[in-house]
Amino acid sequence: MSDRPVTPLLDRIASPADMKGLSVSELRQLADELRAETISAVSQTGGHLGAGLGVVELTVALHHIFDTPRDRIIWDVGHQVYPHKILTGRRDRIRTLRQKGGLSGFTKRSESPYDPFGAGHSSTSISAALGYTMAREMGGTPDPALGDAVAVIGDGAMSAGMAFEAMNNAGHLKRRMFVILNDNDMSIAPPVGALSNYLTRLYEAEPFQEFKAAAKGAVSLLPPPFQEGARRAKEILKTMTVGGTMFEELGFSYVGPIDGHDIEHLAGVLRAAHDHATGPVLIHIITKKGKGYAPAENANDRGHATAKFDMITGKQHKSPSNAPAYTKVFGKVLTDLAVQDDKVCAITAAMPDGTGVGMMAERYPSRTFDVGIAEQHAVTFSAGLAAGGMKPFCALYSTFLQRGYDQIVHDVAIQRLPVRFMIDRAGLVGQDGATHAGSYDLAYLGNLPGFIIMAPSDEAELMHMVATAHAIDDAPSAVRYPRGEGVGVDMPEVPHVLEIGKGRIVAEGSRVAILSLGTRLEEARKAAERLTQRGITPTLADARFMKPLDEEMILALARDHEVLITIEEGAVGGFGSHVAQLLAQNGVFDGGLKFRSMFLPDTFIDHASPAQMYEEAGLTAADIETKVLEALGIAEIGAKRA
Amino acid sequence: MSDRPVTPLLDRIASPADMKGLSVSELRQLADELRAETISAVSQTGGHLGAGLGVVELTVALHHIFDTPRDRIIWDVGHQVYPHKILTGRRDRIRTLRQKGGLSGFTKRSESPYDPFGAGHSSTSISAALGYTMAREMGGTPDPALGDAVAVIGDGAMSAGMAFEAMNNAGHLKRRMFVILNDNDMSIAPPVGALSNYLTRLYEAEPFQEFKAAAKGAVSLLPPPFQEGARRAKEILKTMTVGGTMFEELGFSYVGPIDGHDIEHLAGVLRAAHDHATGPVLIHIITKKGKGYAPAENANDRGHATAKFDMITGKQHKSPSNAPAYTKVFGKVLTDLAVQDDKVCAITAAMPDGTGVGMMAERYPSRTFDVGIAEQHAVTFSAGLAAGGMKPFCALYSTFLQRGYDQIVHDVAIQRLPVRFMIDRAGLVGQDGATHAGSYDLAYLGNLPGFIIMAPSDEAELMHMVATAHAIDDAPSAVRYPRGEGVGVDMPEVPHVLEIGKGRIVAEGSRVAILSLGTRLEEARKAAERLTQRGITPTLADARFMKPLDEEMILALARDHEVLITIEEGAVGGFGSHVAQLLAQNGVFDGGLKFRSMFLPDTFIDHASPAQMYEEAGLTAADIETKVLEALGIAEIGAKRA
Repeated sequence: MSDRPVTPLLDRIASPADMKGLSVSELRQLADELRAETISAVSQTGGHLGAGLGVVELTVALHHIFDTPRDRIIWDVGHQVYPHKILTGRRDRIRTLRQKGGLSGFTKRSESPYDPFGAGHSSTSISAALGYTMAREMGGTPDPALGDAVAVIGDGAMSAGMAFEAMNNAGHLKRRMFVILNDNDMSIAPPVGALSNYLTRLYEAEPFQEFKAAAKGAVSLLPPPFQEGARRAKEILKTMTVGGTMFEELGFSYVGPIDGHDIEHLAGVLRAAHDHATGPVLIHIITKKGKGYAPAENANDRGHATAKFDMITGKQHKSPSNAPAYTKVFGKVLTDLAVQDDKVCAITAAMPDGTGVGMMAERYPSRTFDVGIAEQHAVTFSAGLAAGGMKPFCALYSTFLQRGYDQIVHDVAIQRLPVRFMIDRAGLVGQDGATHAGSYDLAYLGNLPGFIIMAPSDEAELMHMVATAHAIDDAPSAVRYPRGEGVGVDMPEVPHVLEIGKGRIVAEGSRVAILSLGTRLEEARKAAERLTQRGITPTLADARFMKPLDEEMILALARDHEVLITIEEGAVGGFGSHVAQLLAQNGVFDGGLKFRSMFLPDTFIDHASPAQMYEEAGLTAADIETKVLEALGIAEIGAKRA
Repeated sequence: MSDRPVTPLLDRIASPADMKGLSVSELRQLADELRAETISAVSQTGGHLGAGLGVVELTVALHHIFDTPRDRIIWDVGHQVYPHKILTGRRDRIRTLRQKGGLSGFTKRSESPYDPFGAGHSSTSISAALGYTMAREMGGTPDPALGDAVAVIGDGAMSAGMAFEAMNNAGHLKRRMFVILNDNDMSIAPPVGALSNYLTRLYEAEPFQEFKAAAKGAVSLLPPPFQEGARRAKEILKTMTVGGTMFEELGFSYVGPIDGHDIEHLAGVLRAAHDHATGPVLIHIITKKGKGYAPAENANDRGHATAKFDMITGKQHKSPSNAPAYTKVFGKVLTDLAVQDDKVCAITAAMPDGTGVGMMAERYPSRTFDVGIAEQHAVTFSAGLAAGGMKPFCALYSTFLQRGYDQIVHDVAIQRLPVRFMIDRAGLVGQDGATHAGSYDLAYLGNLPGFIIMAPSDEAELMHMVATAHAIDDAPSAVRYPRGEGVGVDMPEVPHVLEIGKGRIVAEGSRVAILSLGTRLEEARKAAERLTQRGITPTLADARFMKPLDEEMILALARDHEVLITIEEGAVGGFGSHVAQLLAQNGVFDGGLKFRSMFLPDTFIDHASPAQMYEEAGLTAADIETKVLEALGIAEIGAKRA
């Protein structure tokens, strides 16, 4: 507790209602205390730091000016909401962030009425805010009653197509609503694209400093706690608008750019906008990710996400790793392939580091494309590259690949173009929780004709599968692999190309066959050891391919065993379901087979440690053991759960 | 054949190479002949007419100026490509359009080297063109070698997020490429949104007529067949650019607006742009959908899609319908619900007529939202409306709903918001072919926790299911129904609310149970009749719910029958797979069950009539009969296929 900052003013704020009467200097003090408390909390929990530090003043100003929770503040992505949570009645639990049973790292409707819309993925806030706005216009009656909707969205998130779609619709409907464009020239990586350049021109080319000074003077004229009235405020707002034509062309009133760390200025502008807006307003604020904490400000990613750390030095407490991360293994093999083959190119959507594509970018920047937060485009752009004779590797997280699903079907699969999808963070992902779980890819890709889909059981297998994808030149392919570290196997010097649609028998046994796709093989191994101690030695098989299935191997496993259990880290409709259909089509069930599938349960699993999530999902060695014993009819011995 | 127009010049054009030396007056004549031939062909085949007529001059000009197929012309959506097909070696087959084995109604890579990228869904062309462009920069070596990429995209399609994502990326990469914005102020319905207003302002507010005149004068100065050189052309291009700031802010050079039916003017501009572009160029042309054919020009939808018709009168030859279309049934029930419940609202993405939402819009325009081609936004906007206390019905085609998949997972399912998805065109769709088939929704929605998914077996069932979705206030729900007409059942006065997760037994039988989800029930009925004649009277069940499954009914069917067959109009991983997993988890296969699933085959089924497609898919009554007999081991009697 000695680490806790001294926060006399923050201690008096039980909810935003307590902020209404504060003076400008008190707001400034509150922001300082809130920043200190945020740093303190994240030093103990780890989590997303930089984004929250960048919006401390905005958070204070929004809750001061707007009437939350009646007014709906919708934070895009949600990395930046720790200060918001502290101010909205959740300070007592802020040190449970991202832990099982604790606060979510994002906004979450079930957690607080101050979180009107959950987030995790980017660029959804304007659509949601417009939904609230039109619900109000039509007499929607949620609890609490509807005030204004305010979307807070970063410049990186603004580059996604759905943000444009929402702006286009909001500009057409012309109802009073607010979009705060939080421009920190940074998403997780620096943002790319023409829009980003445009925003930079807006505040670089314009007399930003002069403007700041003028705005400060103006603020003293504004309503309480800034005295003065309507007409003058309106005029000031008007003169404060420099540039921003693109947003005005889309039907928004544009205000900005504004210094997002000058709370006097910021609160004044928000007050004026709040009091006088009749249609959609975009307020462009300039902030610094990681603001006010030197170790974050100075980091390349501006302290985007962090482990627990020492508050004084900023040094993170990371546990030493035992094996290379899957992401790095992919990045290394990709780069090696790019050395050998000048047709290899790579595409990432704003995640060069998260996907490992950054490794190749260092060496071959001209063959590496960061398209921004734009998964739809990433997929079809990859399809165009493939049609143009290149060998594109499109590296996305499983959960974000959902954004490009139609493009996968329509532009890649139907045209049978050899785009290689490298699907990171497949399966459960730990502290980021349900919004980031990669649970659905096996089902949503598995049903596409002609796709070749692989899942490695360890990091060496990943090497082979990346090489195999490289070699597949006449069909789309995908490799899906998990977050985190490998299992620590010996790594081959060079990868080899696998035979398409062929699995492998890992261990020969009898009575029971366990057929694993992907990284649950380790747990299956452990389960097999336990079972062997009970006198049952299962056959262990690694499917390697979700599609095409190794029909021969699977039918033989079914023929030669009393029990066949599939296991995968994906939802229903995926690997186990495809195996079931194969068995059904071949009449294997006609004569009886104790067939079971283990897959992710039909629930959204909240944030927790990966181990806790696997436990909750029922995909541990103990669960496999239980499943086998139940199938054999000796459940009473092995039952792990009551 | 007497209907064929006289086309002496067109008759000489075997490929675009034959167009290179044509004079302006010859190009004009060629356009007239091409228009006549297009009208003649579509009068015989039916299909998409208006879009093609709007781009006749553009098609001629592009193939005249650019070096196709080396230069890649990428037509967005593809409704407009009939004239392109006629000019590129496919005139002899143009009267096979959209028929089984005939030409596709869209561009298709396998059909011609002049179709560098297939289409069907909108807004993909800029991404694909950028892919080709960057492939060229990196030394990609497809066949034929790479020239320039030219995307042709409509103003409606431009409003989709992925087009913006692609522009943002192209403006950043700054390579030579061309985007032709074909602005006809019309997609299928009139376009909506702020971008559309902006484009209208561009050509309404500017001195369009004067500008036209100036441009015409300029053309005489341009290169062959328009004489003159570089510097002057550049200057002219520059003065021709009025407005277009938004595109320039995104890094494009903007040229326009241009009269897209004045071929002299158009070819001149394209020539100048072709000869002098160094980076990305957007050429904004104004055209009229249905141009040059009065019945199309005067239709509300500008002759968007048509049955076969009489060329003189434009009167369409439509076969009389026997039953109401599913779309109309939905539109009627929705409107009735809106009368009773002022919280009911509806969302469509540029398809008010296609989805039936237009019926409600006529009566309740303020509770009906056409968001434009913007499925991502449509879904999250609906989620926001639900969070705001409304009861949104989000009506999209199955194939287009793929565009909003991530939003369904992240904004609707995880938050358990009661958005009602009304999924039209689920299953096979006939002449539009593989790009429009709604094959995947059962798999990609079925794996989402908490979703309630229904599929009606006839149009009366659809009524009940829409009413049931209205009543579901604590979870997301979906009703998926096919294209076309119902089966002709008696319609109830008012729909009733179904019990969630309960199917129904349609006919009691023995030995064999056929469990159908959705509209294959009619074929199952026919199969049951045939089987009864063979002495086998199957039990027939209508699942009604894909999720939650009627576990009790399904387990009873399995227990009481020797054979259980599921049938659905969807790909693997859907209903049958979920049933298989239910049976496996309950140990039903342990003792043996002749279980089979009938679903869409693992191939993309090309355009054909619906009946031909069902035949190809193996989902007819005869197929069901065969499957039953095979399962019973009496295949030799019933085998339909060799």
